[in-house]
Amino acid sequence: MAVLGAAGRMGSTVVRAVQDAPDLELVAAVDAHEDLSVVVDAGAQVAVDFTVPSATEGNVHALVDAGVHLVVGTTGWDDDSLARVRDHLADRPGVGVLVAPNFALGAVLAMAFAARAARWFESVEVIELHHPDKVDAPSGTARHTASAIAAARAAAALGPLPDATTQSLDGARGADVDGVRVHSVRLRGLVAHEEILLGNAGEQLTIRHDSFDRVSFMPGVLLAVRQVGSRPGLTVGLEQLLDLA
Amino acid sequence: MAVLGAAGRMGSTVVRAVQDAPDLELVAAVDAHEDLSVVVDAGAQVAVDFTVPSATEGNVHALVDAGVHLVVGTTGWDDDSLARVRDHLADRPGVGVLVAPNFALGAVLAMAFAARAARWFESVEVIELHHPDKVDAPSGTARHTASAIAAARAAAALGPLPDATTQSLDGARGADVDGVRVHSVRLRGLVAHEEILLGNAGEQLTIRHDSFDRVSFMPGVLLAVRQVGSRPGLTVGLEQLLDLA
Amino acid sequence: MAVLGAAGRMGSTVVRAVQDAPDLELVAAVDAHEDLSVVVDAGAQVAVDFTVPSATEGNVHALVDAGVHLVVGTTGWDDDSLARVRDHLADRPGVGVLVAPNFALGAVLAMAFAARAARWFESVEVIELHHPDKVDAPSGTARHTASAIAAARAAAALGPLPDATTQSLDGARGADVDGVRVHSVRLRGLVAHEEILLGNAGEQLTIRHDSFDRVSFMPGVLLAVRQVGSRPGLTVGLEQLLDLA
Amino acid sequence: MAVLGAAGRMGSTVVRAVQDAPDLELVAAVDAHEDLSVVVDAGAQVAVDFTVPSATEGNVHALVDAGVHLVVGTTGWDDDSLARVRDHLADRPGVGVLVAPNFALGAVLAMAFAARAARWFESVEVIELHHPDKVDAPSGTARHTASAIAAARAAAALGPLPDATTQSLDGARGADVDGVRVHSVRLRGLVAHEEILLGNAGEQLTIRHDSFDRVSFMPGVLLAVRQVGSRPGLTVGLEQLLDLA
Repeated sequence: MAVLGAAGRMGSTVVRAVQDAPDLELVAAVDAHEDLSVVVDAGAQVAVDFTVPSATEGNVHALVDAGVHLVVGTTGWDDDSLARVRDHLADRPGVGVLVAPNFALGAVLAMAFAARAARWFESVEVIELHHPDKVDAPSGTARHTASAIAAARAAAALGPLPDATTQSLDGARGADVDGVRVHSVRLRGLVAHEEILLGNAGEQLTIRHDSFDRVSFMPGVLLAVRQVGSRPGLTVGLEQLLDLA
Repeated sequence: MAVLGAAGRMGSTVVRAVQDAPDLELVAAVDAHEDLSVVVDAGAQVAVDFTVPSATEGNVHALVDAGVHLVVGTTGWDDDSLARVRDHLADRPGVGVLVAPNFALGAVLAMAFAARAARWFESVEVIELHHPDKVDAPSGTARHTASAIAAARAAAALGPLPDATTQSLDGARGADVDGVRVHSVRLRGLVAHEEILLGNAGEQLTIRHDSFDRVSFMPGVLLAVRQVGSRPGLTVGLEQLLDLA
Repeated sequence: MAVLGAAGRMGSTVVRAVQDAPDLELVAAVDAHEDLSVVVDAGAQVAVDFTVPSATEGNVHALVDAGVHLVVGTTGWDDDSLARVRDHLADRPGVGVLVAPNFALGAVLAMAFAARAARWFESVEVIELHHPDKVDAPSGTARHTASAIAAARAAAALGPLPDATTQSLDGARGADVDGVRVHSVRLRGLVAHEEILLGNAGEQLTIRHDSFDRVSFMPGVLLAVRQVGSRPGLTVGLEQLLDLA
Repeated sequence: MAVLGAAGRMGSTVVRAVQDAPDLELVAAVDAHEDLSVVVDAGAQVAVDFTVPSATEGNVHALVDAGVHLVVGTTGWDDDSLARVRDHLADRPGVGVLVAPNFALGAVLAMAFAARAARWFESVEVIELHHPDKVDAPSGTARHTASAIAAARAAAALGPLPDATTQSLDGARGADVDGVRVHSVRLRGLVAHEEILLGNAGEQLTIRHDSFDRVSFMPGVLLAVRQVGSRPGLTVGLEQLLDLA
């Protein structure tokens, strides 16, 4: 297999993880701006793309043309660029592409569990906690989680969340993401953490994910590498591989 | 509908919950040792049984004969008594019986999520926390959770949990339930709490359930009452109704 | 001893706690609007006041005149009303009055520990969690905690808390209380909870208090009742009795 | 100042921390087996010792003779070796030595707060959580914490902790350290974590410390370096410097 963006932080971590995996062989490690022909020439069956938003879509189309399966962790994909890949794959029936915004198994499971639990609880809120050098609040993961919870509540015809607050200091009740409150904590020493709190009269369910290091993404990347060849077409999100039913 | 064991702690809580539910009508509240004929005479379609282990199986067979659906929360059921109900229901094709050891939605979800997550993590342990008047350790819920986790790991062909401990004070590493470590905390002020910790290199997933009051069982009981009539045969466990797929 | 406001929720809980304490004798239980002469006539040495803001200051001055020690948990005291009691006690040298906004030992300790720890950490934030019927956010306890933390940081000449946020949804970063961020979660099933998170590079200290029931105030009330007679003058805050040095 | 054991994991982290501190100057970095004369020749006023148990006591006596203040983080000190240093310092009245088993401010504060809170709670238990490569259970920190809690309870004449357990799987209730239950969790992904749970009827106080990285020891080491010169004699434990009163 091949790694694109092999000199980057995520890419180099993937290179080491592949080298440590006895069932995988690394045949090409390509820096972000090198030519992709090396991937095909080396005979790679699967490529992992952790490059940059401006390069990733071009990489995918080029390697799909060459019959190489792809696992894509680069950010910047939207509905339009995903649709173009889906169309392209319709003409290449044996090729599989998996695009996922998050490869940490625990984070993906936390989000999936929160969405499934949401319809059974009267209340739900999200707290995300990160290091204080982060520039955006809430985190993308927390926004996705809150949106998925809101969609699950809407599908179950649940009404607005109970909240009797009438006197509030500005900001105390957090940000409103599709009607779900999200609180962003910034604390030196933390990395990336998310907590979903669900409550009914007399009980609470808490789902928490702690990410301490980017090595936590490797089991998810390797899982995708091993499965993408047997999943033709476009797959979006690692949760599709996790057999949660 | 009818409540059996209506004078008990759980039964009386169910009586109040049914009275507060606009779509349900209570037609009979039967104490543990009263005659069941009142249930049939009152025209109940569904009965909830929170009686005692010595009475519950007899109640179920008598009401199945009368064509009444049952939701059973009484403890003491085993594989043999469940098999006898399943056989009986084979002769009464329209009747449904649901037996569940736990009606707290959050506790049931916590256990289901832990079992589904277990195969994706290298490590897992269970901590349960209760008031210090509890006589058994670990709790039944924690034992069930650990067994379900162990079964999921075995199904995924995972090996023993990593543990380099060579010097240990007796008891420090908890109890061994099917190879999964379970720790029992007893603390004044607590009610019933369970925490499942799952770990991979660089990340942790935590699933926690807090039960503060037995009113937390009511949404699960009412859900079962509303669905049992459309689920003929024997259903074991509330998770079957929770649409987790 | 005597209880003022004995028919109220807190007052009646105090009455039961005093009746259960072998070393204390209840000689008068006075409803909010009854005459205080019964306290003096009954020979009470100590009175506990859980009445209403409009009555409490009058009660205190009347009983100080009668030489009765007081433990006051009624809200509504400010610097001016406290100063008037202090002045009055200067003329009654043997009499003690303790006014405290919170009698939960754990809550008082959490706040005291957070203030003492604050100067040793680069980051600190406060999360408070309550049931969704609460009308104000943040809670008074959380505001006091944040102010005490801010004062401790200022005394240690620490600068502003690190926070690189440049893009934020409105409210995500919580309320600003003297420069300390406070987040208010509202969730069905909760009672009253507070968490203080302190962070340095590579480590986190978390102090959390959970209040499940107003019986948690009783050990603090009884402690104050037993000590107030040997602490002449005005004492503000239960932490003064807790021997934290 | 000088660092002894400068090539070790802790020593090299101290070297970097000193180099980053504008008010401190590193004049000697000595490997574990080099001659100490370089420390004196370089004019160091303070030395930090992170060497090995077999060397540390000799280092301390040699540098005390030379009038150098010492901050010692090496393990292996006991009452006898500490007494020998105290005796030696009686003859060198201007010299200060600080020996501490733990330099993580948060861990030291957690232990100090737990000991101070213990007398006010009916129940207390300790949970420590580490990576699964750790060979001993419970951790030394958890044992010290439990012992300090037990001493505080004894000093307050509190009786045994409430525990009605009569049926238990072996190990479920944890290890007994001076009558306090300690539970050891081992989980991939964790580093070093400790949680002290204290409970009364209706309330819980939780104090938790998370150590993610050995950089968390540096603020404590630098604090000791800056203060040891003005604390003649022997000081045991970083908490002596933390102004907790």
